[in-house]
Amino acid sequence: MGLMTRRPAWQRRNTGFRHPAQVISIGFGTAVGLGTALLSLPVATRSGQSAPLIDALFTATSAVCVTGLVTVDTGSYWSSFGQVIILLLIQAGGLGIMTLATLFTVLVSRRLGLRARFLAQAETKSLDLSDVRGVVRRIVVFSLVSEAVVAVALALRFAAGHGEPVWPAICHGVFHAVSAFNNAGFSTNADSLVGYVTDPWVNLVVAGAVVLGGLGFPVVFELARCWRRPAMWSVMTRLTVVLTVTLLTLGTAVLTLTERTNPATLGPLSGPEKLLAGFFASTMTRTAGFNSLDIGAMRPESLLASDVLMFIGGGSAGTAGGIKVTTFGLLAFVLWSEMRGETHVNVGRRRVPPSNQRQALAVALLSVGAVIAATFALVVMTNHGLERALFEAVSAFATVGLSTGITGSLPPQADLLLVVLMFAGRIGPLTLASALALRERTRRFELPEERTIVG
Amino acid sequence: MGLMTRRPAWQRRNTGFRHPAQVISIGFGTAVGLGTALLSLPVATRSGQSAPLIDALFTATSAVCVTGLVTVDTGSYWSSFGQVIILLLIQAGGLGIMTLATLFTVLVSRRLGLRARFLAQAETKSLDLSDVRGVVRRIVVFSLVSEAVVAVALALRFAAGHGEPVWPAICHGVFHAVSAFNNAGFSTNADSLVGYVTDPWVNLVVAGAVVLGGLGFPVVFELARCWRRPAMWSVMTRLTVVLTVTLLTLGTAVLTLTERTNPATLGPLSGPEKLLAGFFASTMTRTAGFNSLDIGAMRPESLLASDVLMFIGGGSAGTAGGIKVTTFGLLAFVLWSEMRGETHVNVGRRRVPPSNQRQALAVALLSVGAVIAATFALVVMTNHGLERALFEAVSAFATVGLSTGITGSLPPQADLLLVVLMFAGRIGPLTLASALALRERTRRFELPEERTIVG
Ligand SMILES: [K+]
Ligand SMILES: [K+]
Repeated sequence: MGLMTRRPAWQRRNTGFRHPAQVISIGFGTAVGLGTALLSLPVATRSGQSAPLIDALFTATSAVCVTGLVTVDTGSYWSSFGQVIILLLIQAGGLGIMTLATLFTVLVSRRLGLRARFLAQAETKSLDLSDVRGVVRRIVVFSLVSEAVVAVALALRFAAGHGEPVWPAICHGVFHAVSAFNNAGFSTNADSLVGYVTDPWVNLVVAGAVVLGGLGFPVVFELARCWRRPAMWSVMTRLTVVLTVTLLTLGTAVLTLTERTNPATLGPLSGPEKLLAGFFASTMTRTAGFNSLDIGAMRPESLLASDVLMFIGGGSAGTAGGIKVTTFGLLAFVLWSEMRGETHVNVGRRRVPPSNQRQALAVALLSVGAVIAATFALVVMTNHGLERALFEAVSAFATVGLSTGITGSLPPQADLLLVVLMFAGRIGPLTLASALALRERTRRFELPEERTIVG
Repeated sequence: MGLMTRRPAWQRRNTGFRHPAQVISIGFGTAVGLGTALLSLPVATRSGQSAPLIDALFTATSAVCVTGLVTVDTGSYWSSFGQVIILLLIQAGGLGIMTLATLFTVLVSRRLGLRARFLAQAETKSLDLSDVRGVVRRIVVFSLVSEAVVAVALALRFAAGHGEPVWPAICHGVFHAVSAFNNAGFSTNADSLVGYVTDPWVNLVVAGAVVLGGLGFPVVFELARCWRRPAMWSVMTRLTVVLTVTLLTLGTAVLTLTERTNPATLGPLSGPEKLLAGFFASTMTRTAGFNSLDIGAMRPESLLASDVLMFIGGGSAGTAGGIKVTTFGLLAFVLWSEMRGETHVNVGRRRVPPSNQRQALAVALLSVGAVIAATFALVVMTNHGLERALFEAVSAFATVGLSTGITGSLPPQADLLLVVLMFAGRIGPLTLASALALRERTRRFELPEERTIVG
């Protein structure tokens, strides 16, 4: 595996080594295949009959890609065995993406500080096996400890506050904890968390787990080390923290305002409950995918605002999806610098190299293209309008898992499209970014310069 | 006026000179104000009563910005006097934008060839009054001759093929010729060109005028000089020609395919007629705004495809709107270069400087932001869904003028929003691009570089 060699092995031709992009694709593809096979077993369903292939494939992809879109109801369709499989797929997908993205971050980060803090030796430009083991161990410990704390908090509340018996409360607590921390959005309840819309305990614990998982491991690691000294934060941590707080606040404000008089969502709630539900909805667009409100009953303006928030997504190298706040933040800084007439793009006291800016542009443009193409295809394949099709496409691509309710009734070709979209949305931005960043750039002779008018 | 000085005057502080962005804003603002005043006169309406201020303002803005969205029917609401005013506003707006954008192109183009072909002296980096006069004269001649030819062709057809009396046929011919060449999309017919949907003569003449006006004067000028030798074309001409042909073809294919079975649009037509109407619809999205089909009856997928085409728009320095094919093309080339691992972005045998790439990014990002914000506001203000609101917002911003039919029934605040959007969409990308391109860049000390992960 290329990541383990001292000199990047994918640059040596005709060796047995593979490019990280291939490793990621093969790894996730294998997990989806295995998951599909296991979910196709009769024992995986409550009815004892084999699930149709498309449902098994859809559910496995949705779980591995921690998306949370479902064609069948998780709690009533799948057996306990099936639910455990889903949980394991979520855990594998979440750990996998977090590990690979973190290793990639360490590998391409030219900042010795981040490398030094993570790794024993910081003088080399590559990772060896002990580095990889160290990172994997830290991530596994971080994930399992976080999930355990959340599971206990939720199980206690389900048992003590909602009168569930002990064993179901524990099962629900564990399932929702893993699902929340990994930003998977799967729920054993048919209505997700609508039943807990006014429960601050459940809402805040789940939202906390979602945000923690979605910040990304390198950012959490850096914050744990030097959260008191923002001046020392890396560009990635700065962008992630500032944009997470900004987007959460903005999302809460917009969704609370647009839905406050909607009788099918926030209307019946009291003032503080409105704010809690608005905050929860805002958190879930980044890209957790639980819902405590009926998304299908939301106003078009709320859906559009959610589309934007979902598309931006969460932090890099975490369990969240979307183009990532770092990509969005970098583009915002490029725009800002351009407007101010700066020659360079500076974030904090660091300069962002032009190749890094172009990577952000590439990720954003290809993502916009993918979402528009998928929306177009969905509108052609179904009789749903732009509103619901766009929401579904963004939700699948950004691995959010929220839906206006159309997922279960789509034709098979639309299900397949969503499978592809979830897969592409999960591994696409990362593999693209890694392929772009790790590649050797060939400098050729320079052509004469010519500028053209734009706009 | 800054454009006339040898050394860019807006860089000298505390002089009486103004930045070109200000000149453009003030010029267009004055034209809108004057138009509003004239259209508010009782003599401007058929009823002889003063038009409401919002309708006069909306119509004047729509005409000056060559958009073509209307709150009242042009043919039946406005008197002949009113229609002449509208025509003059269209002509002023079209000539104004073409002249300013062409002067700007010449000014920032570092390619001596383009300057030398345009101007007497090519050694200075600024324009003096005789340069400006030369460019203006060429543009006026080009516009008036083109419009005259189209007017004659249309008037002949209206009289000979559709049995109109001579004088009305001439009036209709002139009105539609000016409207078409300037990409204004105003029509004296309540149903635009729906009555001529199967008439190849009218369709092709209007489409030709639209494409000619939308190519942009510098491109037409260059093509007239060396259309046989594509190797000599500038980056601007290459991008414009290739993308215009590609997008027209692609748009025709998509719209013909998606609408072919729609009983309210292409369904009843024969095969060749379907293709003609599909081609016409494709042309009109770039950004002419006539329609021979009922836009409101189109399928959601056609509206989405039109949204994309309208947003991209036509050529720079012409009468078309949108972010322009040059902007779109540059971004596509940046993306392509990044995917291939090139250090530089080359178009043809020329290298596009990084600042030029960032300008394209700035125009595209701000335009996306403006359209999303306006769509959000429209959805909040009205009970129209995302489909129609997005179409209306893109149509206004890209100065297209197509509508699903909601323009006439919007609340006043939505009308005002569209007025602002038309104005911003018309002068925004150009002033932004000129402000960015003409500005002196201050080089400061460089900060240490740091790359961050994206995606
Ligand atoms: K999710
Ligand atoms: K127009």
